[in-house]
Amino acid sequence: MSDTSAYARVRERLQQTALLESALAVLEWDERTMMPPEAGGYRAEQIRHLAGLIHERRTAKELGEWLEELEPESVGRHSPEGCDIYWAWRDYQRHCRLPQRLVEELAEATVLGQQAWAEARKRNDFAAFLPHLEKILRLKREQAEAWGYDEEPYDALLDEYEPGARCRDVAPLLAELQSELTPLVEAITSAPRQAPFEILQRCYPVAVQREFARETTRRIGFDYSRGRLDETDHPFCTSLGPDDCRILTRYDERYFSGGFFGALHEAGHGLYDQGLPKERFGLPSGTYVSLGIHESQSRLWENSVGRSLAFWKWRFEAAQEAFPEALRDVSLADFHFAVNHVRPSWIRVEADEVTYNLHIVIRFELERALVQGELAPADLPGAWNEAYERLLGIRPEDDRVGVLQDIHWSAGLIGYFPTYTLGNLYAAQFLEAASTALGNLEELVARGEFEPLLEWLRRNIHVYGRRYLPGELVQRISGRPLESRPLITYLRRRFEPLYGLE
Amino acid sequence: MSDTSAYARVRERLQQTALLESALAVLEWDERTMMPPEAGGYRAEQIRHLAGLIHERRTAKELGEWLEELEPESVGRHSPEGCDIYWAWRDYQRHCRLPQRLVEELAEATVLGQQAWAEARKRNDFAAFLPHLEKILRLKREQAEAWGYDEEPYDALLDEYEPGARCRDVAPLLAELQSELTPLVEAITSAPRQAPFEILQRCYPVAVQREFARETTRRIGFDYSRGRLDETDHPFCTSLGPDDCRILTRYDERYFSGGFFGALHEAGHGLYDQGLPKERFGLPSGTYVSLGIHESQSRLWENSVGRSLAFWKWRFEAAQEAFPEALRDVSLADFHFAVNHVRPSWIRVEADEVTYNLHIVIRFELERALVQGELAPADLPGAWNEAYERLLGIRPEDDRVGVLQDIHWSAGLIGYFPTYTLGNLYAAQFLEAASTALGNLEELVARGEFEPLLEWLRRNIHVYGRRYLPGELVQRISGRPLESRPLITYLRRRFEPLYGLE
Repeated sequence: MSDTSAYARVRERLQQTALLESALAVLEWDERTMMPPEAGGYRAEQIRHLAGLIHERRTAKELGEWLEELEPESVGRHSPEGCDIYWAWRDYQRHCRLPQRLVEELAEATVLGQQAWAEARKRNDFAAFLPHLEKILRLKREQAEAWGYDEEPYDALLDEYEPGARCRDVAPLLAELQSELTPLVEAITSAPRQAPFEILQRCYPVAVQREFARETTRRIGFDYSRGRLDETDHPFCTSLGPDDCRILTRYDERYFSGGFFGALHEAGHGLYDQGLPKERFGLPSGTYVSLGIHESQSRLWENSVGRSLAFWKWRFEAAQEAFPEALRDVSLADFHFAVNHVRPSWIRVEADEVTYNLHIVIRFELERALVQGELAPADLPGAWNEAYERLLGIRPEDDRVGVLQDIHWSAGLIGYFPTYTLGNLYAAQFLEAASTALGNLEELVARGEFEPLLEWLRRNIHVYGRRYLPGELVQRISGRPLESRPLITYLRRRFEPLYGLE
Repeated sequence: MSDTSAYARVRERLQQTALLESALAVLEWDERTMMPPEAGGYRAEQIRHLAGLIHERRTAKELGEWLEELEPESVGRHSPEGCDIYWAWRDYQRHCRLPQRLVEELAEATVLGQQAWAEARKRNDFAAFLPHLEKILRLKREQAEAWGYDEEPYDALLDEYEPGARCRDVAPLLAELQSELTPLVEAITSAPRQAPFEILQRCYPVAVQREFARETTRRIGFDYSRGRLDETDHPFCTSLGPDDCRILTRYDERYFSGGFFGALHEAGHGLYDQGLPKERFGLPSGTYVSLGIHESQSRLWENSVGRSLAFWKWRFEAAQEAFPEALRDVSLADFHFAVNHVRPSWIRVEADEVTYNLHIVIRFELERALVQGELAPADLPGAWNEAYERLLGIRPEDDRVGVLQDIHWSAGLIGYFPTYTLGNLYAAQFLEAASTALGNLEELVARGEFEPLLEWLRRNIHVYGRRYLPGELVQRISGRPLESRPLITYLRRRFEPLYGLE
């Protein structure tokens, strides 16, 4: 293929568009970390305008013509070039189905929605957020109709975040988890031995937490010459360029786990981004394949690694040095038990590994009903609280810790939540394979040697970008399709001994 | 005029372009404050691409046609609409004279140039910066030729920053200052009484400086709901939207003045930006008129106000409370003398008010010679050091504190330096008028009441945007053209008594 080939033209266009997409990501990162409070209105206009330009590029007629020349339907999508052509064609078709007006309206509504959400959460005022949510939901349903679907509109939204995933497949996996985890949560809750949670609520000075999180994430492999760690209301990870990965967490002087495991989680995302082939930035072959796979990386580092006994064998001494007041009189065993404390709670991002997936079941149910038109946005707080009572046996004390806790819906991220549990499922299935391949994973972790695991993840997952679909990656790595068994086994193995339930 | 009139179309286009220009400003601010070190290459590509898009917009044929319909040559340029038309037409013609390739090359060369400059300064390695400087200079000369000029190419560059200014007018003002200030500097240097400078080199904890600078700039009127104060290598001020003004300074634990007066200086710029009519953001009538006028605002707050005895009558007690170790045993008079310490030194941004303009004379001479082709970039360090010896009697100990100290040339800002001294001249002439109008300015300042002065500046300068040229503003406010007399008088009045030279 010469440089004037249709493929070269497509590649150049995609990489040019990525320059604007990543500029937009800078504006969004800045909005959520740095921007002065009064600047939101104009920032929304900037974002809307850039989003409109990007949409024009993505749907340019000549791009479609170059792609058709390349016969995308028949291309082998596992090679880097085939992958680029396959996904560029799929994305082109999806983008072309959206009217310019809808794209710009969505961009603006979600910027304003996020600003309104932050304010509403602060004031516990769902009513102030409601008109934004209604508008966003209306636009998202319009988007689902434009994209099209076989069974239900929610599938069209889910497919955006987890290509190939359908309610038909996801719902049974979630149901299996629910039926296995509900009795496990009950057994843990009524176990005679309980985690010494109070340890984590001692005083952990924020400046020290900041340093400890930074040093730990650096040691697991996050490259700070190509990234940053900052603070925000709702932690996230974003890449503003091939060498510019930004992760964010939120510290609380009186709660160790929020800031630390938040940082570890986002660093897990960051390791994936930093492991993608950087010379292919902006091309499908250099882009993460799905949010579920992305989440598998963050949950693997946060939980499978970060909450393991082996990890704290390595890191507890440093924690004691950093936080002498809080940890001087604490044993490794107690600390490890504390960070694995299981208790039904209101806040998803701070939930333990066992109850976490029940939070997702609730959101999946609710947003599916919202999109189907079976639930009105105005009725959401009531439905939310009822579901928490039913699945977790607790009722949020107000909307701040209830329906207003997550940024997602305000940002138009509907159909996104299931990818969190898919991530947990992928992570457990990947970890089984990695443990077998590496043989002595726990020993490595206990010595603070993370390079072999990171290398394994890079070689088996990161380097491929979108060359394999999530289901294909799982099959290649584990020899089986995605199942609930590995996650359930992993959770039982970790929590039953801790709580004396064997 | 109806909304479909040519003016409405021009206004919409300019405001849309401003969305991209301000997005570009976000990328640049982020680059200089937040971006990880390895991310520079890709950021340069992002900036180059956006700059190219902006140039396309600015030179779009239909914009020229709409403007011609409005007969820009005959429009009264003092009304808001007339101002928009006049400047849009001038800018359109200037932009059209630049080939797209030159615009993009300059954008990229100056991003890479700034990165190379920062590295070269750190390592005292002018040679590493030289190829960047040569390239930038070549492109700037090309730019000057494209814009055109009557007398010398430097005029074309100067006009970009100070509309209407010419070497013919600026050179004599600088010469007058040089001939008056050289003997004043000599008299001060050999005066028996000297400022107790050591006071400012005591320990001023950076965290406290940060808070003190923030609170002081807030009290003079900088609105933090519409702005931020951050830190960077080379302080600056930028507006990323009508309600998003970012100012930056640089703290040194062992030097009070750098961080504090840097913040006050940038806040002065910020007050101008925050005082522009915000509903006209992105239009000439909502844009600062020149860099010299911008600088007059920053120097007025930094020096005329911030280094006055009245100011410290108000603020010294708070300074003593903030820095008890450093200031407990210091008198107001000594502190005031210290912050007005005059001594020939290497660094422009830290220079006192008297020697400051001699730094500008040096840069003006050198860059004029560079642009004329009379001085080769490779010979710059030698010429720089020779000029410092000649005008200030000192020789920089290395290029870090010599030719590499300023970011300007690396950013393509050639023709920019004279605006600093023009700013000092404007500030002195404005201050005379404000003092007359307000009657009791010193008393107000000594009570910490800055609203009347800020209000006067807004009413006489800020609200006009570009509706009056710098020279017209000076004439309206003072009844006279720009002169060197007010600045010389101001400097003599402030420094002769301090140094016992009356």
